Amino acid sequence: MKNLIALAQLNPKVGDVEYNKNKVIESIKKAEEKGANLIIFPELFLIGYPMGDILTRYPYIANQQLNALDEIKEYCKNITALIGFSEINKNKFGKPYYNSAALINNKKIEKIIRKTLLPNYSEHNDYRYFESHKTDIENRIFNLNGINYGVAICEDAWNDFDFFEKNLYKIDPINEIASKIDVLLCLSSSCSRAKKEQLKHNMMKFCALKYNIKYVYVNQVGANDELVYDGLSRIYNEKGELIFLSKEFKEDLAVFDLDKTDKSIDLTKDKINLQKKEFSLNYEADLDRTYKSIVLAISEYFSKNNFKRAVLGLSGGLDSTVCAVLLADSLGKENVLGVSMPSGITTNESRNDAKILAKNLGINFLEVPIKTMQGCIKSEFENIFYNVSKNWNSRYENSFTNDNIQARLRGMVLWGIANEYASTLPIATSDKSELYMGYATINGDMSGGYAPIADVVKTKLFSLARWMNKNRKEKDAIPTSIIEKPPGAELAINPKTNKPLLAEEALMPYEFLDEVIWRIENLNQSINNMMQFEFLYEKKNVLDKNTKLMWLEKFFKRLNTALYKWYIVPPYPIIDSYSINKIEFKQPIVSNINYSK
Amino acid sequence: MKNLIALAQLNPKVGDVEYNKNKVIESIKKAEEKGANLIIFPELFLIGYPMGDILTRYPYIANQQLNALDEIKEYCKNITALIGFSEINKNKFGKPYYNSAALINNKKIEKIIRKTLLPNYSEHNDYRYFESHKTDIENRIFNLNGINYGVAICEDAWNDFDFFEKNLYKIDPINEIASKIDVLLCLSSSCSRAKKEQLKHNMMKFCALKYNIKYVYVNQVGANDELVYDGLSRIYNEKGELIFLSKEFKEDLAVFDLDKTDKSIDLTKDKINLQKKEFSLNYEADLDRTYKSIVLAISEYFSKNNFKRAVLGLSGGLDSTVCAVLLADSLGKENVLGVSMPSGITTNESRNDAKILAKNLGINFLEVPIKTMQGCIKSEFENIFYNVSKNWNSRYENSFTNDNIQARLRGMVLWGIANEYASTLPIATSDKSELYMGYATINGDMSGGYAPIADVVKTKLFSLARWMNKNRKEKDAIPTSIIEKPPGAELAINPKTNKPLLAEEALMPYEFLDEVIWRIENLNQSINNMMQFEFLYEKKNVLDKNTKLMWLEKFFKRLNTALYKWYIVPPYPIIDSYSINKIEFKQPIVSNINYSK
Repeated sequence: MKNLIALAQLNPKVGDVEYNKNKVIESIKKAEEKGANLIIFPELFLIGYPMGDILTRYPYIANQQLNALDEIKEYCKNITALIGFSEINKNKFGKPYYNSAALINNKKIEKIIRKTLLPNYSEHNDYRYFESHKTDIENRIFNLNGINYGVAICEDAWNDFDFFEKNLYKIDPINEIASKIDVLLCLSSSCSRAKKEQLKHNMMKFCALKYNIKYVYVNQVGANDELVYDGLSRIYNEKGELIFLSKEFKEDLAVFDLDKTDKSIDLTKDKINLQKKEFSLNYEADLDRTYKSIVLAISEYFSKNNFKRAVLGLSGGLDSTVCAVLLADSLGKENVLGVSMPSGITTNESRNDAKILAKNLGINFLEVPIKTMQGCIKSEFENIFYNVSKNWNSRYENSFTNDNIQARLRGMVLWGIANEYASTLPIATSDKSELYMGYATINGDMSGGYAPIADVVKTKLFSLARWMNKNRKEKDAIPTSIIEKPPGAELAINPKTNKPLLAEEALMPYEFLDEVIWRIENLNQSINNMMQFEFLYEKKNVLDKNTKLMWLEKFFKRLNTALYKWYIVPPYPIIDSYSINKIEFKQPIVSNINYSK
Repeated sequence: MKNLIALAQLNPKVGDVEYNKNKVIESIKKAEEKGANLIIFPELFLIGYPMGDILTRYPYIANQQLNALDEIKEYCKNITALIGFSEINKNKFGKPYYNSAALINNKKIEKIIRKTLLPNYSEHNDYRYFESHKTDIENRIFNLNGINYGVAICEDAWNDFDFFEKNLYKIDPINEIASKIDVLLCLSSSCSRAKKEQLKHNMMKFCALKYNIKYVYVNQVGANDELVYDGLSRIYNEKGELIFLSKEFKEDLAVFDLDKTDKSIDLTKDKINLQKKEFSLNYEADLDRTYKSIVLAISEYFSKNNFKRAVLGLSGGLDSTVCAVLLADSLGKENVLGVSMPSGITTNESRNDAKILAKNLGINFLEVPIKTMQGCIKSEFENIFYNVSKNWNSRYENSFTNDNIQARLRGMVLWGIANEYASTLPIATSDKSELYMGYATINGDMSGGYAPIADVVKTKLFSLARWMNKNRKEKDAIPTSIIEKPPGAELAINPKTNKPLLAEEALMPYEFLDEVIWRIENLNQSINNMMQFEFLYEKKNVLDKNTKLMWLEKFFKRLNTALYKWYIVPPYPIIDSYSINKIEFKQPIVSNINYSK
């Protein structure tokens, strides 16, 4: 008998046990047809990941999973299945659930393996729901057709004492079973992030080689709110060679012959040097993943929430341009409506760029000048402020009120269209650099149903735009002028230049700004630290210490007042190694940090 | 020598070690002056609670706390101090920090006690940052002046095997030390929630009595973002009698003679029956706490973020009315501006009510009819929709576009005023019942810098309004007509009545709606469960099963589409036992739940 293993890299619906169960049964049938004698599903597949607090809220779902397993086991006569689910903890002590995997064999649940290591960092929140269980060595192992398999649930396999310099847990479940198994089966729901693929690869390779075992990794695929799952399930042989790799960002039910000695697959595109902690503008190695992640994230968010169409403002600037391309590729050009909403400040160049972009993409396009509406609001505001000033002092001499009226009127138009047409969602086009700076208008450009590029910094967006022009089927959809002109919100005139104020004039050079973000997220540096290092920008430009300090202080001052904006930013796909305030780096709005230290 | 203990119930600034350290030193001096030989500070006082991810982001703060302790110890010659802080975990294994307390005696750090039980439910996230440490029994105990003290850090004291039916942890640190101590000292940062005060009281009383020890509890006070700390530090004697209680919602440095046999204090106002799991419209027992919590929350959010003034829309309805009163009492009437923004649908009664309310409160008032602006937007929209419809079908026959234009214009006016005047924040007036139903306009009434009543259901708001009319210094500030008229957004006309559509016509009776929320939050019931129980509404009204089912299905359908609104709701103070989606009951937006089960 052959040892054919099926890797069920599937996309669950969170909380929809019925749907997920049917997917399991269907996959078991298909795998069996292909001759598989073992099928592995991702972690928590029956409930879907991330599950949030839905088990607390709808406790019936726990039992529903048990019933589903009962039904599933009838299909496991000639095939063994390993399925992730959340199991009720019936003891007096501990959290209400376990993060478990059911091993079904011969129409019976042969054993249940419980997750021992519970991640509670970044997007993970396992310890909120699950009790850690030190699964017995014997219980982690089963024999099938002469092969000894060991089972790990995601984090259980992420605590090698040799591979990591520091370890979050004192137990390494893999080390405990490694000498007793031939093949490690790892059920996972591990979302895609910059550099994580390379880390994962290095770690699994290391583990297979260290213990002289085969390493089978099955990952969830799809996207749920912020989290994008790339799939990329895989198998390593005992030499640590990657001998099988599932599709990326797609469901895939692959069947692999474990006895076959396949040629090793080279992960050339992922040869990222994880040791190199240096800021670089060379984003090339991560653009393909970035593009595919966002396109999948948008399509999943729309389809899982029953939306079909997107409407966004097209300013002729980089952010809305990149969003428009991603939306067109994700939802289909006929389902995207770009609205150019010029005010008195908008340049003709921007208007034309927006028009040409829409034409190149083939999306729907509309021009709605906002001058009349703006005039109407402004004249009312004059009157309002006249009256408010009778009782309140401290009216600003130079306020952003008029800048914001423009942005908010645009938001009003987009939400209006979404209100008027079925299944339509407006898009927030803010990018990560500008969100860090709070350089986004509440109820304006940062308002929308989804924010596709909120975790991508500006300098990377430039690279992404160029990359898309080269790598999409329709080449050069983005007019070169959009990529080449310096970014600006075109909400105000710079009195010094008499032209629309540029973002870099209002903030600081993006090359510098993005390196500050990089240093915060990757090195946890504060102003004093940063003053001691030479920025990439300084290698290319003359920058005196006073200006550098001024920029840094400006950055942190703006960051501090941007905390509230992060709190209300719409959902966005996580792309970077570290993500803006919702997932990592959560900071209370009222906090009072000395950023200069 | 007397045993005088100081309970340092103080308000820290999150992340501001310098500020918190100075508060510690100042309090030590004052306590010593009053003759105290022991002073207890709240949990994590040197960094402030909740600390979010700021230690990850600004790791220097960990060392800053050590330096602060070094400085503080110089002040502890004749007084012993116990101070909560976050300690670096220097081992290869485990989370990066401990949640610790430093015992300073004779100018030395005599010992460090580490928290063993790490809460990770509701608003708590300890396990994200802290390593659990099984503190030795000896290390938890110290002797001072002949008395044996034991130290617990918050959750350490919340796991009594007899008191709770189920326990989250297998260890009870109090049980381990109880026989060896005379007095338990519990450092805490425990936020105020409905019924929690009663639970806390019952538990501490139980513990003191069970072990025949004195129980000293020191809590943080103040508010940070969503969390409100009521203080209410206290002491129980060996009979479980409450013999000392600090001020509520205020800083308090009380010194108490432990040898004194004080009279027992009766917590009459908190005699809540925790066993009684039944929905009731009698909110009386919780109104004083609700009022004080929100007033403190607003004042803290404003002052800690350097805001001074609030601007809100005054519709003449209940929500904005209650918000206006709370704001006036929190920020001072001169710092509140109420703006009445009638549209064509607004009734004269509502306009008058808004005006009278403002006059009664003495707040600033302005009437800004939005009809002109509305007309201007509407005519542009006609044109826009005409063009969009050329390419897109599925235009709604009856859309909410015009309703929302009104709400969003009001939002635009409020944010405009906030943009134009220094230190001014607009207020979101949505209540909990309506947020559950998504009955709030994005960028409209649910937009603002803070949302004072987002965790208070409508029926409770009616009670609160009546309570405020009775209990505030200026009686009857709220016109009776506001409390008596049925709520409605006045954004659309009901074709059946030809009058403004009432909320209960659009949704369902609030008495019913609020019981659904109560059943979700307290009993985790789904539609099927709820169908089997008689609602309070059914006891008073005839309600056939079909209508009941229809209401329930409507409720859950609306709740499902409201998930996104919860995601972007502004910060609000947590008031209820369970809070809307941000803290508890988190549910992924893309989730697909069968609510009928």
